[in-house]
Amino acid sequence: MSEKTKAHEMAEKQKEISISEFFTKNRHLLGFDNPTRALLMAVKEAVDNSLDACDEASILPELNIEIKKLSEERFIVIVEDNGPGILKANLPNVFGKLLYGSKFHRYRQSRGQQGIGISAVVLYSQLTTGKPIKVISRISEKRPAMYYELHIDTAKNEPKILKENEIEWKKAHGTKIEIELEGRYLKGKQSVDEYIKQVAIVNPHAQITYIDPDKEKINFSRATDKLPKLAEEIKPHPHGLELGTLMSMLAVTKARSVSGFFIGDFSRVGPTTAKEICDKAKVKADISPKTITRDQAEALLKAIKETKISAPSADSLSPIGAELLEKSLRKEFNAEYFVTTTRPAEVYRGFPFIIEAAIAFGGDLPKEEQVKLLRFANRVPLLYQQGACSVTESFTDTNWKPYGLEQKGANFPFGPAVVIVHISSVWVPFTSEAKEAVAHYPEIIKEIKLALQECGRKLGIYIRKHVRASEQRDKVDLFEKYIPELANSLYNLSGESKTKLEENLRKILKKNMKDILGEIEDGGEKDKS
Amino acid sequence: MSEKTKAHEMAEKQKEISISEFFTKNRHLLGFDNPTRALLMAVKEAVDNSLDACDEASILPELNIEIKKLSEERFIVIVEDNGPGILKANLPNVFGKLLYGSKFHRYRQSRGQQGIGISAVVLYSQLTTGKPIKVISRISEKRPAMYYELHIDTAKNEPKILKENEIEWKKAHGTKIEIELEGRYLKGKQSVDEYIKQVAIVNPHAQITYIDPDKEKINFSRATDKLPKLAEEIKPHPHGLELGTLMSMLAVTKARSVSGFFIGDFSRVGPTTAKEICDKAKVKADISPKTITRDQAEALLKAIKETKISAPSADSLSPIGAELLEKSLRKEFNAEYFVTTTRPAEVYRGFPFIIEAAIAFGGDLPKEEQVKLLRFANRVPLLYQQGACSVTESFTDTNWKPYGLEQKGANFPFGPAVVIVHISSVWVPFTSEAKEAVAHYPEIIKEIKLALQECGRKLGIYIRKHVRASEQRDKVDLFEKYIPELANSLYNLSGESKTKLEENLRKILKKNMKDILGEIEDGGEKDKS
Repeated sequence: MSEKTKAHEMAEKQKEISISEFFTKNRHLLGFDNPTRALLMAVKEAVDNSLDACDEASILPELNIEIKKLSEERFIVIVEDNGPGILKANLPNVFGKLLYGSKFHRYRQSRGQQGIGISAVVLYSQLTTGKPIKVISRISEKRPAMYYELHIDTAKNEPKILKENEIEWKKAHGTKIEIELEGRYLKGKQSVDEYIKQVAIVNPHAQITYIDPDKEKINFSRATDKLPKLAEEIKPHPHGLELGTLMSMLAVTKARSVSGFFIGDFSRVGPTTAKEICDKAKVKADISPKTITRDQAEALLKAIKETKISAPSADSLSPIGAELLEKSLRKEFNAEYFVTTTRPAEVYRGFPFIIEAAIAFGGDLPKEEQVKLLRFANRVPLLYQQGACSVTESFTDTNWKPYGLEQKGANFPFGPAVVIVHISSVWVPFTSEAKEAVAHYPEIIKEIKLALQECGRKLGIYIRKHVRASEQRDKVDLFEKYIPELANSLYNLSGESKTKLEENLRKILKKNMKDILGEIEDGGEKDKS
Repeated sequence: MSEKTKAHEMAEKQKEISISEFFTKNRHLLGFDNPTRALLMAVKEAVDNSLDACDEASILPELNIEIKKLSEERFIVIVEDNGPGILKANLPNVFGKLLYGSKFHRYRQSRGQQGIGISAVVLYSQLTTGKPIKVISRISEKRPAMYYELHIDTAKNEPKILKENEIEWKKAHGTKIEIELEGRYLKGKQSVDEYIKQVAIVNPHAQITYIDPDKEKINFSRATDKLPKLAEEIKPHPHGLELGTLMSMLAVTKARSVSGFFIGDFSRVGPTTAKEICDKAKVKADISPKTITRDQAEALLKAIKETKISAPSADSLSPIGAELLEKSLRKEFNAEYFVTTTRPAEVYRGFPFIIEAAIAFGGDLPKEEQVKLLRFANRVPLLYQQGACSVTESFTDTNWKPYGLEQKGANFPFGPAVVIVHISSVWVPFTSEAKEAVAHYPEIIKEIKLALQECGRKLGIYIRKHVRASEQRDKVDLFEKYIPELANSLYNLSGESKTKLEENLRKILKKNMKDILGEIEDGGEKDKS
């Protein structure tokens, strides 16, 4: 058995890969593929965490964001909040370990969900500058504030604490982080400035102060003292459940019967529904969940699919709301027409979600440019990876011509419009760990399209009634203005009475105008059918 | 100290997340966001592994692929190869553990690179069907073939072996896997059929038999008995290196001096270059790498950036080659003009890469449709996530108008053309674990654009010289045909001699034709400037 095959040679190279090594080599998966985006990611992850912590602790958020420029390529990002703070025992893992957090295992809308974001920023910071992250956190005025400097040991995916001591701090509770990293600061549509502006729009309960790299201080004042409705933690919904998940849940449940399992471990299942599922699957309702075989689990799953179960509760979600969406659009864009819609809650893979859409049209919006699409997920603006996003695909796949916008193929339409789409979910399926684009689940695409079509139809009616008609009226007015002159010319040619000529010309115009307006009224309906 | 703060409550929920749990919840990151794509991913990961194993063992690949349809939503994927086989000790981890493999830690072009692909398929299979993967593998005719059935324990990210025994098998060496999963089989441009066809095109040394779900057998015969040039394993190139990576390398190197470290652990660095780097950084060349501080490492990195170092060797890469690229295009498309280009090797973040591009134009290609873009990475066709790919962005950002194609804004151009882009790299930076789109590194985008522009310029010259000219000539011909009739009409009006009239008309035509053709010759140059 001493023969060394090619398989032996290859086997020597097989080994385990640490998650930190994986993401160091794949840092673009985390959004760090260029310095401009890296700077945004650092601000974004820190701000998301601060807002989530404040929301969860029911604290009105006060954020101070500062970006210090050390050189064209080197920055320090500082984010300070008045949140609940982080326990000494957990703090190193929160910042120094990938795949660690409180949001992954629960069903509730939050900005963060993966346990990767902020530690990814630490990873990138140490990769590009070799510097540790600096953190101050305090959980109560009765306790001292703690100061930490830490690294990530990438081979082990563990925090490596370089400094740990008590420190004087003015705040009763909160967290302040300071990260040095390579980056580039640019203004424009994918900038930190734009990000913070959009965050302020969809988080009107937050007070944000931002000092930009040019040391300019910008205040985003709180627009309301009311905290947004706290999203409640819920249990998974049976619809969209997968066999593997069902089998894992059956294996670990504390319920003593299958019916008890369905009633206790899922939302929207009562005794009647549980019995119906068991009956359909020919599984006894009172046997222990641990005894269920693969085939029985498959029968149960089939029965679930065939059983009518109420739609998931929207309590776990916190959509922006039609009113606020329109308010945000009005604040930002000087348009002449606004339309918004909030779809009912739907489910993909057992996760509830809600789609909201809005359109601003006309006014000062540029007529000849591509329509601007603004994407949000769980109140977080998505500025990158537009092309990868199912929101974009749903948007370009929508036929905008019947709704009055110019469009060639499945491309961005052109016209004076801004379109907003917001997805709220207990688990937004992002296409990468950078959380910038929503994955292509058919259930989500369908809802986005329905939301866009709802808004589109109303926009179409508005455009046909007001815009096209007014354009036609302008032409008619112009023609009418030249009637006397035309009549004069015709008089010179024909010798016919000028009054008579003018009268006839007006008649012709009136007749044609009726035709034109009739066409406008009908046009849309024809396109829709 | 008994006060329970909000931070305490939140801390209770903080916990570690297993990588298998992470990818189960995020299965769209792995490409499993809909059943059609899931079926493709299963075939793709298995085929990529088989071809990589054969290439590495210098075996001409013979692949049997079969998809058995159990129902509209349930399939069995079988992939069998004549590769080197997998050792008993490693096999369970290869299929039952995410982040495990031989390709992650080395610098060499291969299809797989992450240690995730095939175990992700196993994860998805068990999630949707609860069934284990079945594997047969044999490493030599002197040893028995081994049969395995295994699961992944998602909470631990470890393989769970359900069956393990010797088995009779006809092959001397090779691996056969059988996976049951939920899927959907569709024909068309993102189908398994299309994938296998494109694989055969860029792997002309592979013999592939494919039995589709309708039991139709398709043979893709080997076009050459020559193995492609084996990509060699190289050391990283100093350009594009990051501080964190440099610091980690300094900490673990076996070299005893800094200059020895640079010479031994990098490619393209000799004693002169090593000395130059140390001198510029004001670091003594003979001190131990372990003693280098963060600030010294930063100085060394700065010095590396300012030092001229030869471009990386292309030995680690295995591009398709201009000849084969054109051959593939000719095989697939009945076009009238072909142009291909292979750029020199470049580096991003220390990883060498080569961009190849090709265009087929005219002939039977549809005139009124969007130009078709085919993307490849390390000889693997990329069928999904076109919108997320830097290849697509580079393509739409290119101004195709001067090259004779119709284009509105930064959208897909229209015209009778197919464009191919292939990136070969020791580490292709994909935007997600599903490996369907290339991340937006500026160095890569620049090279793709240059390759497209090179092809585009040649296409533009061809279109101006042949296509536009021939269109104009058609018009001239048409006009010439009517000269006698026109002359006759003019004779009736004027009484002038018909011969004289025809002669004059021909003179006018000739004069204008010259103008037209002159304009055609100049047009392109004007556009380019």
